[in-house]
Amino acid sequence: MCAIVGVFGAKKASTVAYYALFSMQHRGQEATGISVSNGEKITIYKKRGMVNDVFSQETLNSLEGSCAVGHNRYSTAGSASAGDAQPVFAKYKLGEISVVHNGNLINKQEVRDELISNGAIFQTDMDTENIIHLIAKSQKKSLVNRIKDMLTKIEGAYCLAIQSRKKMFVIRDRFGIRPLSLGKLKDGGYMVSSETCAFNLSGATFVRDIKPGEMLTFEEGKEPKSEMVFDNIDFHPCAFEYIYFSRPDSIIDGTNVYQARLETGKRLAKETPADVDLVLPVPDSGVAAARGYAEALGVPFEMGIVRNHYVGRTFIEPTQSIRDIKVKMKLSPIQHLIEGKRVAIIDDSLVRGTTSKQIVRMLLEAGAKEVHMRIAAPEIKYPCRYGIDTPTEEELISSSHTVEEVREIIGATSLGFLSIEGLKESLGKERNYSLVSFDGKYFAGGSKNSPSCGDS
Amino acid sequence: MCAIVGVFGAKKASTVAYYALFSMQHRGQEATGISVSNGEKITIYKKRGMVNDVFSQETLNSLEGSCAVGHNRYSTAGSASAGDAQPVFAKYKLGEISVVHNGNLINKQEVRDELISNGAIFQTDMDTENIIHLIAKSQKKSLVNRIKDMLTKIEGAYCLAIQSRKKMFVIRDRFGIRPLSLGKLKDGGYMVSSETCAFNLSGATFVRDIKPGEMLTFEEGKEPKSEMVFDNIDFHPCAFEYIYFSRPDSIIDGTNVYQARLETGKRLAKETPADVDLVLPVPDSGVAAARGYAEALGVPFEMGIVRNHYVGRTFIEPTQSIRDIKVKMKLSPIQHLIEGKRVAIIDDSLVRGTTSKQIVRMLLEAGAKEVHMRIAAPEIKYPCRYGIDTPTEEELISSSHTVEEVREIIGATSLGFLSIEGLKESLGKERNYSLVSFDGKYFAGGSKNSPSCGDS
Amino acid sequence: MCAIVGVFGAKKASTVAYYALFSMQHRGQEATGISVSNGEKITIYKKRGMVNDVFSQETLNSLEGSCAVGHNRYSTAGSASAGDAQPVFAKYKLGEISVVHNGNLINKQEVRDELISNGAIFQTDMDTENIIHLIAKSQKKSLVNRIKDMLTKIEGAYCLAIQSRKKMFVIRDRFGIRPLSLGKLKDGGYMVSSETCAFNLSGATFVRDIKPGEMLTFEEGKEPKSEMVFDNIDFHPCAFEYIYFSRPDSIIDGTNVYQARLETGKRLAKETPADVDLVLPVPDSGVAAARGYAEALGVPFEMGIVRNHYVGRTFIEPTQSIRDIKVKMKLSPIQHLIEGKRVAIIDDSLVRGTTSKQIVRMLLEAGAKEVHMRIAAPEIKYPCRYGIDTPTEEELISSSHTVEEVREIIGATSLGFLSIEGLKESLGKERNYSLVSFDGKYFAGGSKNSPSCGDS
Amino acid sequence: MCAIVGVFGAKKASTVAYYALFSMQHRGQEATGISVSNGEKITIYKKRGMVNDVFSQETLNSLEGSCAVGHNRYSTAGSASAGDAQPVFAKYKLGEISVVHNGNLINKQEVRDELISNGAIFQTDMDTENIIHLIAKSQKKSLVNRIKDMLTKIEGAYCLAIQSRKKMFVIRDRFGIRPLSLGKLKDGGYMVSSETCAFNLSGATFVRDIKPGEMLTFEEGKEPKSEMVFDNIDFHPCAFEYIYFSRPDSIIDGTNVYQARLETGKRLAKETPADVDLVLPVPDSGVAAARGYAEALGVPFEMGIVRNHYVGRTFIEPTQSIRDIKVKMKLSPIQHLIEGKRVAIIDDSLVRGTTSKQIVRMLLEAGAKEVHMRIAAPEIKYPCRYGIDTPTEEELISSSHTVEEVREIIGATSLGFLSIEGLKESLGKERNYSLVSFDGKYFAGGSKNSPSCGDS
Repeated sequence: MCAIVGVFGAKKASTVAYYALFSMQHRGQEATGISVSNGEKITIYKKRGMVNDVFSQETLNSLEGSCAVGHNRYSTAGSASAGDAQPVFAKYKLGEISVVHNGNLINKQEVRDELISNGAIFQTDMDTENIIHLIAKSQKKSLVNRIKDMLTKIEGAYCLAIQSRKKMFVIRDRFGIRPLSLGKLKDGGYMVSSETCAFNLSGATFVRDIKPGEMLTFEEGKEPKSEMVFDNIDFHPCAFEYIYFSRPDSIIDGTNVYQARLETGKRLAKETPADVDLVLPVPDSGVAAARGYAEALGVPFEMGIVRNHYVGRTFIEPTQSIRDIKVKMKLSPIQHLIEGKRVAIIDDSLVRGTTSKQIVRMLLEAGAKEVHMRIAAPEIKYPCRYGIDTPTEEELISSSHTVEEVREIIGATSLGFLSIEGLKESLGKERNYSLVSFDGKYFAGGSKNSPSCGDS
Repeated sequence: MCAIVGVFGAKKASTVAYYALFSMQHRGQEATGISVSNGEKITIYKKRGMVNDVFSQETLNSLEGSCAVGHNRYSTAGSASAGDAQPVFAKYKLGEISVVHNGNLINKQEVRDELISNGAIFQTDMDTENIIHLIAKSQKKSLVNRIKDMLTKIEGAYCLAIQSRKKMFVIRDRFGIRPLSLGKLKDGGYMVSSETCAFNLSGATFVRDIKPGEMLTFEEGKEPKSEMVFDNIDFHPCAFEYIYFSRPDSIIDGTNVYQARLETGKRLAKETPADVDLVLPVPDSGVAAARGYAEALGVPFEMGIVRNHYVGRTFIEPTQSIRDIKVKMKLSPIQHLIEGKRVAIIDDSLVRGTTSKQIVRMLLEAGAKEVHMRIAAPEIKYPCRYGIDTPTEEELISSSHTVEEVREIIGATSLGFLSIEGLKESLGKERNYSLVSFDGKYFAGGSKNSPSCGDS
Repeated sequence: MCAIVGVFGAKKASTVAYYALFSMQHRGQEATGISVSNGEKITIYKKRGMVNDVFSQETLNSLEGSCAVGHNRYSTAGSASAGDAQPVFAKYKLGEISVVHNGNLINKQEVRDELISNGAIFQTDMDTENIIHLIAKSQKKSLVNRIKDMLTKIEGAYCLAIQSRKKMFVIRDRFGIRPLSLGKLKDGGYMVSSETCAFNLSGATFVRDIKPGEMLTFEEGKEPKSEMVFDNIDFHPCAFEYIYFSRPDSIIDGTNVYQARLETGKRLAKETPADVDLVLPVPDSGVAAARGYAEALGVPFEMGIVRNHYVGRTFIEPTQSIRDIKVKMKLSPIQHLIEGKRVAIIDDSLVRGTTSKQIVRMLLEAGAKEVHMRIAAPEIKYPCRYGIDTPTEEELISSSHTVEEVREIIGATSLGFLSIEGLKESLGKERNYSLVSFDGKYFAGGSKNSPSCGDS
Repeated sequence: MCAIVGVFGAKKASTVAYYALFSMQHRGQEATGISVSNGEKITIYKKRGMVNDVFSQETLNSLEGSCAVGHNRYSTAGSASAGDAQPVFAKYKLGEISVVHNGNLINKQEVRDELISNGAIFQTDMDTENIIHLIAKSQKKSLVNRIKDMLTKIEGAYCLAIQSRKKMFVIRDRFGIRPLSLGKLKDGGYMVSSETCAFNLSGATFVRDIKPGEMLTFEEGKEPKSEMVFDNIDFHPCAFEYIYFSRPDSIIDGTNVYQARLETGKRLAKETPADVDLVLPVPDSGVAAARGYAEALGVPFEMGIVRNHYVGRTFIEPTQSIRDIKVKMKLSPIQHLIEGKRVAIIDDSLVRGTTSKQIVRMLLEAGAKEVHMRIAAPEIKYPCRYGIDTPTEEELISSSHTVEEVREIIGATSLGFLSIEGLKESLGKERNYSLVSFDGKYFAGGSKNSPSCGDS
């Protein structure tokens, strides 16, 4: 996933960026960073860890300037290096530049190969380094033209914020796969962030979504200038942003996330109803869909599984074999509610099936007579390049098993998924959502190399 | 609050105690400790911090023995000292002893004064030290008789687990104010804990509640021996255990906590209904009551406020005056759901009024047309000695203000509390609940010195 | 070893104590603590770790008061518990008391047994708890008389500082085994510390040594009051304080430590000269003696072994078997100086022989033609109760081997020890030094239970 | 300063590098790093902190391969960024490369400017990045030719180790300013390091110094290949390596450091004798010179100032104004030795004069009758670019004051420096040492841009 933020014209841009990154912590917990410009000089601070641990008041105070770009990095198995945190800063021909990037460049390797064959060096594996190199290598005179030049050379899903000493440029790719919104600060400055939930803690008000293919240029003393930098706009917002990436209070391209999830639950009830006494969510991800499901069926909804928020990193070997101990440390069923009942349990997705199996077993142990699992999304059959951690096709249980086979594996009384059609209708707008994980269809010509909802 | 656990006859008693304390982390986060006996020697480890941080696999491995007692200490403002962690260990005439204690001795000072005047020294402020001194000073020959002797000298609310090298004694006071339950381990041993939610991670099954005034003695090769050690039993379970202390999946004296909260919500709907479009809980504390309230009124319930679980200890000064920033870092309303709606917001209690005021303001800022606050408990008018942190009478807003005055202060459209009668009926059994915070009536003769639902 | 400090009548007594403990870090690195009294209340802070890590400016600021007592605890294998740090604080009949103690009570167990049989409880293994109990149990009316009462009941080597809310009492045992000195602060207050090197950083000036059997009482507005609290004074200062416990700049009972070591080196040269080209010390412990040895022989002295001060706690397994890697990480010989030379290497003591063997081998590997080891102390043949870590008789190589046997084991060309007589003369005063480690003779009647240079 | 190490053909090259860096910790404590190649892939780990803290057994185990390059970074005020640690790794046209560098490129900015104008980006301020760019941009086909190409473009003082997947290249600049030595591992591999003291802990034996202008190429199955890559060799070893950079047991270009310092002391005695009773070193830097000074004068030498090795990072404000508290926390004079004496105090250099002034005052306070300060190096009159921390000309007290003026400022009875001639003779070989700090004469044509003993 990852999150980006850009701030321009604020008194203490680093603090505005901090609060935005704090609000988007759910999009990435591995590393975080902010760079600021005071018009003369770019200063950067980035580190592995959570926003609250990485930044202290002292650090933020040392990041002086009215323009900031920031980033939260999603935890990926492969990358242990602090060097892989963003923003990426560099000195180049026109001065200093700092870039944050949320997305996945599908022609990354080709671009690297060409740059390298021309003498470039790469110090990290991040797409962001490609972007800076392309800007630095461009023959154009101005930064804005170099950025446009660079944009003709990268393909994929991306949102970018690019900071020079004096300006900030923000770009959303022509497919609009990842969300990006513009907000206005109380004191006249602006902020741009991956999710609208990032606006609240700085008292910013939502202005509008950045359009697919749009570039905004921020410059002192001027209103943000909008330009469409692509002519072949082909809007394909990622359905997973609604299904589970984004925070329920965010509004993405006009649709509130909680509302979208509620609708998936309602639609799920129509498509695959269950004759149950009680509807339970898997907390917290399944709450809104379960609410919709229960409401549509007219069956009581209860928060019948308690989530323990104290779970840490240590794992202590239990004394005797307690099955599913890790799930049980995190989730506890309320036996009193469940005993002797036929329950529906709602989750937002089913990937490998391991957790679902443990949850079903836990509910049966708690005395449920029947456990009907419902997933508020279609079967995930195809890997989509969200990042290094994305399961391979072999790991995706639905890629090689029928619904009935999966049901048997997880031990549920019944199992139902939302249809692709149902998902599209729940998201509420006539749009070509990026659905490649479900239907395997890449939208830009069907090629496997077409951009999908990937991520860096 | 605090939590205690006792384990007897387990293969690795320290691990069983660890999982129990982990499950009861909500009862105390300041410090934790476990002592074990292997029949020859008591070993203890205690430290400030959360269960998961204090204990490593290595530490637990070093705590060898089949009997363990453990404790979670509630965070109280006054005590910074690691010495105030429990268990408290001592060598005394009959050997070694280790004690954990959840409760509040109301004659603590008198007992201390007398012990001190006889030459005793006190190294901490904990009640637990009183208990050990009384055992050590008793003229009785056996530990069991010394414990009984000690029990005649302390007054108040308490649950105790006392460990010698060979035995374990567990006592619940004659008023039964704090909960205490007995569970059976799969492999034949036993565990006793403040809440039943502590049984699950070790696969223990609930046997029964310890009775008010009961002492259980655990000895190798024998079944636990039960004795009633008081003849004047006067059962007064603490209503706050149901209102907010305990975890929703626990069953206390036969009543499930989630169910009890659900009932308070339903009853609240009868007593103080609101003409609203939507019912929201303050997460997570108000969820069950809000569910009941919504169901009884037939109004939609939504998780309309998102709780951010990443909130840490650092606080960063915002750039401009953002009102209620700390509450907003923790709670975010879903504007989409709330805008233009008349909402009821349900919480489990209203103490100082500060947070309620901020939540009301937050909902109004999110566009709510009306905000009807409902509290699933009666007005808290009297301080009850829960511990050092208990607000004084001056701090309790309901102690000096009428409901209407409080409503005005917090800015709600309307405000309603559950009646005392309503609370009692919701808790579902004919019992003399300890309700001193609401009615100011101390149950053992009306004296201010009577035991109440206090805590150490 | 351990170190104690007492401060009275200072503006910020905690800071004075801090600097004293910092200067006496060499006497104990396991734990440290300070308690202060402001006349109304005693506040204490203690923790495992080094002085510089345990105390921050903030912590010291929170320790307000003009009287302080502090302690450094020597690292001993057995004790992992933070509870074993000093000062020990207690409330007792006359109020509050805080005690620090450097020494070893030889009748500790008898005293404990008696106290316990009268109902006392012990929470730690520290002698200090005995002392507080004896004070608390005394039937005397005033603290001073209770202290005197307590002194009649303990036997052993000790220096004590006892703090009440208003006064401070400092006592050195009647044998004077451990050092204790009085200093005067610039602003009129006083400090007492184990070593005189503790005076410098607070600008205190040395007044005099506390006499064996003397008690000093500090009270506001009065000069310190001296009393001899024993009539059977029998002065036996510990020879090891000069040999290696104390810092070279300290002056103990009138003898400077560096000078004493210089004298042992000179005497050693007379008793066991070596026909060598070069004299080297084992740094830093053997430096002064090596200087004396070289001077007396008229042979060049060089710092021919470099000590690496960066050695930390981690140990990395070397790639191939490097003999003596741990010693080599700490000590590096300067091959250029040593190659082809006959060298004398001087150390302050030889306990197990392991390190000496490694040093000899290292010098031979560096090309030394002959390695003559000289020890500026007699053979250690008997364990003396310095603390839990003291080697047993079996571990003391000289207890079961002749000098020639030891020489062969460590591989030296020759080996020589200082004679007991030589040691006594080097220390420069006509005194009955405590020499039990060398001659096995306990001074108070020859009993094994007689006090020796023990330590808590 | 900084330190570099290269290891080739070792079983666990990372461990060999670790022990080398540990032994050269004195050359840089800010950051450290190691990269390894297993023939297929380069893996790197670098971080701020000391060698012992940065590397664990686990980390070293994860650095698999038989070739390693490593670096210790010297603490410089300006650079707070972890990104400035070495090695610097990059992917470029021929594959992967990792570089460590000890030195200072004097045409750094010109090279950067040119690279940048051709589209390069720079992510750090390190010279090392220049080097990698020049290699990546070279039009030559092989790495070795690209390296040679690069060497024609950089000017300055440097030692380099360059690692590709299969080979390692080591270069010492044509002036030979910084030391670099070759050692042979027991098991047949090789190591190269800044100082010979790095060989011992891996059991390597010294082979020879790398010659000025020499490049060594290491390749599997072959002996190291030597090439002279410059034809205008102009050997100017840095005199400061002998004066205080290097460890006393190192041998640099044939001269042992301790021996060199001893000689400076002897020569100093001839040039500027003092009529004193005692010679003291400033520990540990002045020890060897003080030994030589004392011996030449026939005056006793004593370690009359104790160095406290427990000094940490925290600083506690003293209670009253104690002059020179920071120096006093680190150094304590032995009053007993000094009182009433005329002493000579020997240090290795005098830069700003601040510490010298404090030491003189400390000795006078300790009772010295006269304090004759002697410096075993000439007056430092000109800044030499050792790194960012080098004092400016204004800060160098000798640059604007005569010896007599400095003497008055520091309060010494007399003050003497070693002459430049004396220094050269003490270092023992007929060589054009780099002496720019003393005489201001740049050796390569007198230009200010000529290389000097700089450092990265």
